[in-house]
Amino acid sequence: MIAGIIGATGYAGAELVRLLAGHPNITTLALASISFEGERMDYIYPNLFRKVRTALIRPEAVLEAAEVVFTALPSGVGESYAKQCMEKGIPCIDLSADFRFDDDETTFSAWYGKPFVYPALRTRSVYGLPELNRKKIKDLAASGPVIIGNPGCYPTGASLGAYPALALGLAGTGTIIVDAASGITGGGREPSRAFQYPECADALAPYKVGCHRHTPEISRNFGFMATGNEKQPEEALPLIFTPHLAPMNRGILSTIYIPLSEAWQVPVPRTAGPCPPTQEIMDQGAVIRARYAAFYRDEPFVRVLPPGSIAATNRVRQSNYCDISIHLDQTGTTLILATALDNMVKGAAGQAVQNMNLIFGFDETTGLTAIPAAF
Amino acid sequence: MIAGIIGATGYAGAELVRLLAGHPNITTLALASISFEGERMDYIYPNLFRKVRTALIRPEAVLEAAEVVFTALPSGVGESYAKQCMEKGIPCIDLSADFRFDDDETTFSAWYGKPFVYPALRTRSVYGLPELNRKKIKDLAASGPVIIGNPGCYPTGASLGAYPALALGLAGTGTIIVDAASGITGGGREPSRAFQYPECADALAPYKVGCHRHTPEISRNFGFMATGNEKQPEEALPLIFTPHLAPMNRGILSTIYIPLSEAWQVPVPRTAGPCPPTQEIMDQGAVIRARYAAFYRDEPFVRVLPPGSIAATNRVRQSNYCDISIHLDQTGTTLILATALDNMVKGAAGQAVQNMNLIFGFDETTGLTAIPAAF
Amino acid sequence: MIAGIIGATGYAGAELVRLLAGHPNITTLALASISFEGERMDYIYPNLFRKVRTALIRPEAVLEAAEVVFTALPSGVGESYAKQCMEKGIPCIDLSADFRFDDDETTFSAWYGKPFVYPALRTRSVYGLPELNRKKIKDLAASGPVIIGNPGCYPTGASLGAYPALALGLAGTGTIIVDAASGITGGGREPSRAFQYPECADALAPYKVGCHRHTPEISRNFGFMATGNEKQPEEALPLIFTPHLAPMNRGILSTIYIPLSEAWQVPVPRTAGPCPPTQEIMDQGAVIRARYAAFYRDEPFVRVLPPGSIAATNRVRQSNYCDISIHLDQTGTTLILATALDNMVKGAAGQAVQNMNLIFGFDETTGLTAIPAAF
Amino acid sequence: MIAGIIGATGYAGAELVRLLAGHPNITTLALASISFEGERMDYIYPNLFRKVRTALIRPEAVLEAAEVVFTALPSGVGESYAKQCMEKGIPCIDLSADFRFDDDETTFSAWYGKPFVYPALRTRSVYGLPELNRKKIKDLAASGPVIIGNPGCYPTGASLGAYPALALGLAGTGTIIVDAASGITGGGREPSRAFQYPECADALAPYKVGCHRHTPEISRNFGFMATGNEKQPEEALPLIFTPHLAPMNRGILSTIYIPLSEAWQVPVPRTAGPCPPTQEIMDQGAVIRARYAAFYRDEPFVRVLPPGSIAATNRVRQSNYCDISIHLDQTGTTLILATALDNMVKGAAGQAVQNMNLIFGFDETTGLTAIPAAF
Repeated sequence: MIAGIIGATGYAGAELVRLLAGHPNITTLALASISFEGERMDYIYPNLFRKVRTALIRPEAVLEAAEVVFTALPSGVGESYAKQCMEKGIPCIDLSADFRFDDDETTFSAWYGKPFVYPALRTRSVYGLPELNRKKIKDLAASGPVIIGNPGCYPTGASLGAYPALALGLAGTGTIIVDAASGITGGGREPSRAFQYPECADALAPYKVGCHRHTPEISRNFGFMATGNEKQPEEALPLIFTPHLAPMNRGILSTIYIPLSEAWQVPVPRTAGPCPPTQEIMDQGAVIRARYAAFYRDEPFVRVLPPGSIAATNRVRQSNYCDISIHLDQTGTTLILATALDNMVKGAAGQAVQNMNLIFGFDETTGLTAIPAAF
Repeated sequence: MIAGIIGATGYAGAELVRLLAGHPNITTLALASISFEGERMDYIYPNLFRKVRTALIRPEAVLEAAEVVFTALPSGVGESYAKQCMEKGIPCIDLSADFRFDDDETTFSAWYGKPFVYPALRTRSVYGLPELNRKKIKDLAASGPVIIGNPGCYPTGASLGAYPALALGLAGTGTIIVDAASGITGGGREPSRAFQYPECADALAPYKVGCHRHTPEISRNFGFMATGNEKQPEEALPLIFTPHLAPMNRGILSTIYIPLSEAWQVPVPRTAGPCPPTQEIMDQGAVIRARYAAFYRDEPFVRVLPPGSIAATNRVRQSNYCDISIHLDQTGTTLILATALDNMVKGAAGQAVQNMNLIFGFDETTGLTAIPAAF
Repeated sequence: MIAGIIGATGYAGAELVRLLAGHPNITTLALASISFEGERMDYIYPNLFRKVRTALIRPEAVLEAAEVVFTALPSGVGESYAKQCMEKGIPCIDLSADFRFDDDETTFSAWYGKPFVYPALRTRSVYGLPELNRKKIKDLAASGPVIIGNPGCYPTGASLGAYPALALGLAGTGTIIVDAASGITGGGREPSRAFQYPECADALAPYKVGCHRHTPEISRNFGFMATGNEKQPEEALPLIFTPHLAPMNRGILSTIYIPLSEAWQVPVPRTAGPCPPTQEIMDQGAVIRARYAAFYRDEPFVRVLPPGSIAATNRVRQSNYCDISIHLDQTGTTLILATALDNMVKGAAGQAVQNMNLIFGFDETTGLTAIPAAF
Repeated sequence: MIAGIIGATGYAGAELVRLLAGHPNITTLALASISFEGERMDYIYPNLFRKVRTALIRPEAVLEAAEVVFTALPSGVGESYAKQCMEKGIPCIDLSADFRFDDDETTFSAWYGKPFVYPALRTRSVYGLPELNRKKIKDLAASGPVIIGNPGCYPTGASLGAYPALALGLAGTGTIIVDAASGITGGGREPSRAFQYPECADALAPYKVGCHRHTPEISRNFGFMATGNEKQPEEALPLIFTPHLAPMNRGILSTIYIPLSEAWQVPVPRTAGPCPPTQEIMDQGAVIRARYAAFYRDEPFVRVLPPGSIAATNRVRQSNYCDISIHLDQTGTTLILATALDNMVKGAAGQAVQNMNLIFGFDETTGLTAIPAAF
């Protein structure tokens, strides 16, 4: 099968190239880059030398050749390619935010500052978080060419961490806090002072506090997760999302604070100050861990970690895994989840390949079996 | 003046050596190390070559020579040295947790697993967070030799961030969350697999979730801060503290979530999801920032950042500053503070020197005027 | 096929586990670790969670079960396992230095401070640098069970860089200098102060100058390379090797200075100082690059880079490639080669798998097709 | 005294601001930046917040106010400011290459691609490597306003390492090789893909092999050093210089290979291969180390390390030191020197301040007494 990538020289595009070049069902890559048309992919990315000799062509030529198209472009740029895919009858997997909001143009335009270009395309689009929407994706793909709104990197880590708590009724009504940090590749390939090495080394800091665009995507996911993936709840769950930048190349670590519903809280005697975990707290932690493990039992890419193991970005590098560790705070009121994923794989290109596998009925793990290295 | 350091070859000790070797009121250093007695300090730490040729001597010899003693030892080890300082009539600045809990032995022993060795020493000890206890420190020092319980690194960042919100009544009654990350020097100098380079690079992960020993210290500080530094409130403020390890040498970044009291909340229309900040939110943020700036106006080492500037660990490297940036979440209910400090300076050795300056009536910034470098 | 690893929990062992777990001809892993016997591999290395659940067993049990054995142990420890493999009639691939010196016990014991344990084993052993010894390896394997002396990480990078220059007569008689730097994983998994994160970050420094144990291995390889792989030259080529430690996890970068033989030198007018490259220098560079490319044309894991591309450690991460870039100094007298490889893959575990593939007649790239990532 | 900096917002400029803001003889800073005129320095560099509130003004205003001017600009841009300084009668310390070549316009223009703008200025300029030219600098400054050609970062490390060997006749006639690596700040502040964090992390690679502009500067220095700083030798010493980029912020590590003159070589029996150091080699190393120590005895910023200590970039961070360790290769023919300095301090801004101190007769270490930190 011929896979096309439009936007092949950005970081997400380059990671797609790497994954698809090793995918057993992909025979040929058709790669487009507006900035580097005519150049050879492995001259721009020397890591690919000898492996991907393909020259970069125009998007139109990619659309003509490909049997599936990935668009890895800034929001607002890729809709016309998605439209052409639909007209040609082939699936389009879009890594921007354009198709992440279903038909909720109000929210999209409020946060992204522009309307949908072709609103009608949303009849053929679906939000591509397989753990949430696997059936929706397969059903829509069965009925014709489909557009995948590939999830954002932060929303993937936040949503997979909170999903069981929301679906199983562990979460109470209080504010959920998602405190997350990303490696620098999240900033993309365009040169920018903020992402120069000397500005990033030793630097840990939040950014876009209270106004990051992934907030409404997380909030929307949480809503569906709390209601059996049927509809949004009448009132959005209160959510605070704070992204940080951390001095590493890859990875997103999310620390998620979910106030437990009363039924799930553990009474802890409150004396002068908080105390070390009681047996009740440890027992409740084990129960919740078991629920999480059962919830994700059949998921190939979600690893619910055993007690004593804590999610860490370096344990999932270059893999499509999302690791989740489960903790209970010492006051017995709050569930704390740590999730780790590779922002360029499960947070972008790997998830896109997983969606392609779903659409075409390949085994969902095809081309995504890399075992993360220890270092 | 002769300054003595017991535990000079640990990371905090080595940083103390560096700062005191550049302190204009310190003429001589007397350094003790149990592991390296007899060796020259600059052979163990080649960065000090030619600058600190001092040989390491026995603790007893340090106690005999010194006019002020710093103990940079594991908790439980340094009390006898503090006792000897009191007997000799010289101040002791202890960087462990031994004297951080005033006379609250119950909390100390619950979290540190051992009793006070010499409980009576607490009549001469004071918790050394100058921004909170400057007057207490000076008053006690005026009445005789004093023991400083030098604050923990995380509690310093958390407490300085929350102090104005607690003291000025901005904080409501909900749970305060302190989500913080430290550089690897926080792990100390003893070789350990967890802190080997290949285990730490690219790795971001929480640790000791729900049970880190700095939790009761933060909680206690918050209590005093909310009550005019007079006594603990009847019921401890609900607190969750989650430390992380980040791939950098120095620095602690704390992101602090404080639910606002009703009077300070900003009503935001809650529609399908949260929206970009409204003008009301931005205005309220400006008011709170002004309050913070006024609160810390005379503090030499607290920098309340201007709008648009965000606290970052690399901006305070090797300095005694604690930077604070102020944010309001988009739902108008929660104050978000980011604080950055150097865990080895304001979080340990620098604060210890600041306390020494206070005790001896030196200008509080003496020896601590280093301007942080940009990179 | 069942593959056994003795020493599975060291860094090289863990990398072998990762590569063999993804190798299509390996069905089962038998893993031994003296330190962690009885524990599950993926509890020690959480990156392997769910992928390698194998429990660690005794070396004897590995020897019994395995059809090929890898020994990843300190020098001097593995010979008895190699002996048992020979007795059982299965190949042993040893990652230590024990079998790297053929039957030259004099050199081995001079540098490693101990004699061969079972000297007779050398009749069945061969130095496993496939690019140099492919035929020897296959021939010996065809005649019975074989022991591979898997090359050192530095010697692999140095030797592959110099091989064509030596074999094609480009090198003159002057001293060859190999100036190389390794990532920190080269220091192994045992906790050590030298490899703690705070000691390594920002630190670039040479070590063991003039006395690193890889020196005689490089020198011996150079000798064989200069004489058609038949015998050592009467006089060893003069060699200086200086290793450095660089602040990164993986990778070895070697910068190799080879004085050109007179026939290959380019006359450059020497005025007040050296000048920018002349056309003659650039032309000669192109000729040499073409020779290198031809020399390595059929090698699957050696990439001779095109003009303008320079070998860099991050371009070969997690792959079995050795990249080589070719340069000529501006005085026209010295060939400068830069080679980059991943010290844990082509420098250790990957090369071991390559040797296994050779022994069993698998395609040489089986299990080693990972495409290096860009970041 | 009022110090002016033109080009204050580049990395070298920002480091100058930091150093001069802490210099006891500088009362006021006048800062110019063409890109950021009108903005406040501490808003561009938040690390300076509260410390350097100065607004950025036009270069002309700086020239008017200042009593000494530092120009931290690209080569070719600063000559007119130097000219105006001369006309005004104040010293100019130029951090570009414009004044590093004395009156050798031929070499300068061959390597920098442009002629001198005002050749006559060279009657008032001197190359500002204090360890080589201290007397020349002082003498020229005594006779009127002076221009300092502040040395390049690589030439400083290479020259200080080789100086005693060249001056004392240790060096033979063979090619000297300088293999050096710099931290990423060497690339400057302008955003560039090559210096983005994801391109630099884990990356070690040479660049500009055989054609880096610092080559003629090193070569020229070597010539003067070999001839008592009187004139260039008839034939330039053969030199190869290879710069690398290493994944760290600051620091230059130079490994320098100097073939010993016959008188200084140590005969080593050459058997099958090189052997561990003989006693003769160690003795000779000690003799050379003693010569180096004596040569630099009175230099405040050169530290000749004791045996067993090796120059490392992290030991000189943020200091004006150049550390030198001395080694002899195991064949007894080559002196190997490792030098470490902070490229932004001794390699740029610190050395500029040292030159200012010389010019004005301040103690040479004024404002440069920072003790390097261990981590």
